[in-house]
Amino acid sequence: MLKDFIKNEIPDEETLKAKIKEERAHLSASQMKIKEAALPVMVLFEGWNAAGKGAVIGKVIRNIDPRFFKVATMDREPSPDEKRYPFLYRYIKEIPEAGKFQFFDTCWMEEIVDGVLEEEMNPEVYKKRVRSINVIERQLCDNGYLVIKFFFHISKKEQKKRLEDLQSSKDTKWRVDKADLLQNKHYDKCLDVFESYLEDTNHSRAPWYIIDASDKKYAELQVLQFLNQGIDIALKNQKMNVPILQNAFPMEKMPKLSEISLADKTLTDAEYEAQLDTLQKRLRDLGNKVYRKQIPVIIAYEGWDAAGKGGNIKRITEALDPRDYVVEPIASPEPHEKARHYLWRFWTRLPKTGHITVFDRTWYGRVMVERLEGFCSENDWQRAYNEINEFEKELKDWGAVIIKFWVQIDKDTQLQRFTDRQNTPEKQWKITDEDWRNREKWDLYETAIDEMIQKTSTTFAPWHVLESVDKKYARIKALQIVIEELEKALKK
Amino acid sequence: MLKDFIKNEIPDEETLKAKIKEERAHLSASQMKIKEAALPVMVLFEGWNAAGKGAVIGKVIRNIDPRFFKVATMDREPSPDEKRYPFLYRYIKEIPEAGKFQFFDTCWMEEIVDGVLEEEMNPEVYKKRVRSINVIERQLCDNGYLVIKFFFHISKKEQKKRLEDLQSSKDTKWRVDKADLLQNKHYDKCLDVFESYLEDTNHSRAPWYIIDASDKKYAELQVLQFLNQGIDIALKNQKMNVPILQNAFPMEKMPKLSEISLADKTLTDAEYEAQLDTLQKRLRDLGNKVYRKQIPVIIAYEGWDAAGKGGNIKRITEALDPRDYVVEPIASPEPHEKARHYLWRFWTRLPKTGHITVFDRTWYGRVMVERLEGFCSENDWQRAYNEINEFEKELKDWGAVIIKFWVQIDKDTQLQRFTDRQNTPEKQWKITDEDWRNREKWDLYETAIDEMIQKTSTTFAPWHVLESVDKKYARIKALQIVIEELEKALKK
Repeated sequence: MLKDFIKNEIPDEETLKAKIKEERAHLSASQMKIKEAALPVMVLFEGWNAAGKGAVIGKVIRNIDPRFFKVATMDREPSPDEKRYPFLYRYIKEIPEAGKFQFFDTCWMEEIVDGVLEEEMNPEVYKKRVRSINVIERQLCDNGYLVIKFFFHISKKEQKKRLEDLQSSKDTKWRVDKADLLQNKHYDKCLDVFESYLEDTNHSRAPWYIIDASDKKYAELQVLQFLNQGIDIALKNQKMNVPILQNAFPMEKMPKLSEISLADKTLTDAEYEAQLDTLQKRLRDLGNKVYRKQIPVIIAYEGWDAAGKGGNIKRITEALDPRDYVVEPIASPEPHEKARHYLWRFWTRLPKTGHITVFDRTWYGRVMVERLEGFCSENDWQRAYNEINEFEKELKDWGAVIIKFWVQIDKDTQLQRFTDRQNTPEKQWKITDEDWRNREKWDLYETAIDEMIQKTSTTFAPWHVLESVDKKYARIKALQIVIEELEKALKK
Repeated sequence: MLKDFIKNEIPDEETLKAKIKEERAHLSASQMKIKEAALPVMVLFEGWNAAGKGAVIGKVIRNIDPRFFKVATMDREPSPDEKRYPFLYRYIKEIPEAGKFQFFDTCWMEEIVDGVLEEEMNPEVYKKRVRSINVIERQLCDNGYLVIKFFFHISKKEQKKRLEDLQSSKDTKWRVDKADLLQNKHYDKCLDVFESYLEDTNHSRAPWYIIDASDKKYAELQVLQFLNQGIDIALKNQKMNVPILQNAFPMEKMPKLSEISLADKTLTDAEYEAQLDTLQKRLRDLGNKVYRKQIPVIIAYEGWDAAGKGGNIKRITEALDPRDYVVEPIASPEPHEKARHYLWRFWTRLPKTGHITVFDRTWYGRVMVERLEGFCSENDWQRAYNEINEFEKELKDWGAVIIKFWVQIDKDTQLQRFTDRQNTPEKQWKITDEDWRNREKWDLYETAIDEMIQKTSTTFAPWHVLESVDKKYARIKALQIVIEELEKALKK
């Protein structure tokens, strides 16, 4: 792409000015349409050092109301804290919300190509990173994001001249660092790496646009033109249906909920007390070990209302050092969460390495409540099984332990607990009209849950069913599974 | 993809039967919707030999009215005649028309992977082929095609068993050939090549679906499920707008039509006669040479009404051996042409190697008359510049000489010629009401033509302007350019 790229003649000063003016007005007019259409616009600026990315970003944003855009400057090493998350984390944190622009002053490309050039990244890791990037860019597009990618291109000679110009003045000398000079010195090698990356990540829905950055005004014009064109088209394509990819992950064979027997899964109080104590001690010890080994742990709870999730979680967390874990209760998304990719609020709640996050309800809301209540389209939830598996695969590849619990009770047990809650003053807060309404949809939920368990029980993140008619039994089983999974991870 | 692919449990016989019945009914019901929505559906079957592709195709088509589908059996070497066209030619010939299915019993994948496995294709050619395939699949999707790709997967052991079973009976022995046995013997090597190809051509809009073909009924079910799912989604996405890719081909600097002086471009009769004779003799000689060197030649004429295209073409063809050239007059597309990708009627009119095709009007109708008369959407013609450049690049890479003429006159000259035609009984057939209507849109056309010439004068297929107020001048210039281009090609 870069190597074939031949610069065309730069329009004369007069024409440039007129065209830029026109495109600026166009962009300015688009911002309200973007707001109204709730279109999130993600613009990635990558390219050679000293190619003028920052200057053009500065000019582009002047046409947009400050309430409607943000600039994320990612052109730096990840901080020690950021390094304790998946590499995509610090970028995904910054994705725009619906109706707004987010400009990235370099994005995931920079981190990857730097890794390759500094020979820290072997080809296998490179391939994995590229795959992760392709997955997330596709997921963003499929979920309604406009993703526009610019590569600012200048020649070796031009780059050299710019760096020398900067160095020649006391005021600008500080802006040239070693990395800039090295890039110019090894221009051809960099070109090879950039070329491969661009080819490997060029897709018709999130294509690369090469910007001839030899002239700053012309660069601005090209960016504005591609940006306006992309926005115009995206505005016409709202609520598009997206092909559903094959959910080709290795799956574990799982039973249907109706096939799971509950009655025989009980413990006496004595059995429970004895085991609880032993298991919690064991877990405390393992908790310390995963902290020292810096393994991130994700424990995800889903289950029927009144199935006993809360008490179950408590028996896990009681055993853990409060500095090492957090429980994330997941309710309906806040407006700023709803305005982003549905996995964003989970990406941003991930544990750091060595930490444990317990999700009390999870991203599986997409294929349960959001599906059944029509909060997303059928195309959205049909796609979500694969998207969620991709998400969990990303976490697994990062090194996370993922434990997913479905807390199972039968319909009669739920009625009994609902009635009990209703009749016990200090428990009344736990029961709402919504619980009763959900209960009426039991059968629809059961179908959705069966499908969810079938389609997302990957070998690397399978569901575990906790039979919770006897809550004691469920708690002990949960502790046993967590212990087993942590032990497995520690052995690796 | 293949290597990660883990088979899931095959449903029991009863379930399989019930589900297949359901999916068959679904497909059957879809055929009229596809017809009504004018959706062209292209289904590619690839996979291991003896994986049962043919059998499944046979079952799938039983649900569709014979008027609505065709099967293209491409599982064979290209014929000697087909080898004289670009490798994509024989597949593109078979693309479905709007509202119909086309099932490919193997498609371009097979040809490429066979080439790699037989070590006839070096990595550079492989890369080029993959790029061509990605371009055409994208173009098809962008132009409203549903493209679904299946890979039929079986294990080495299963394949061996099937081949042995076939060989063990006299009636089926003939169905196993050397290539089948070789594929089984070198299963792992084939797996590597297939894996790479699938990865290199897997796109979110034309994704691969891996079919577990270890059980024939189950294979049918999977195909029906993915097919129905794809159709349902495509039916919801009619008239979608598509991102416009960067038209990043190297361009020649071209003047605007208004900058081209016409008055001084004249020849006396004597000059004309003398040059015509010499040039035609030279061209005759070159025509023979390109025939012997098996170079395909494409000469494309566009120009204003009454600019003198016909007479100009005549002076070229007069010099050629009638067995070696054909003139293709391009009018409005026939219904069966209109129902396909707009470049299809040009793909299917390409010259064989060694032959010359003169197009009297061309694929540039997309960005002139179709643009101005609203026969395609703005998104369609905006995309077409790049699509056409890609098309011409494909032809150039194949080895074709491409010569594009714009025959230029001014508005007054046209009026004079129109009036002359109107007033001369034997010329009256040449002038229609439409010509007068088009004339009224002269300025709109001029803008479109200027844009076309700017955006499609690639270095490998630039426009040549023939100043044709003096037709003699234009004819001599055309001859000179054709001669020059053929000489260049013969020197390579």
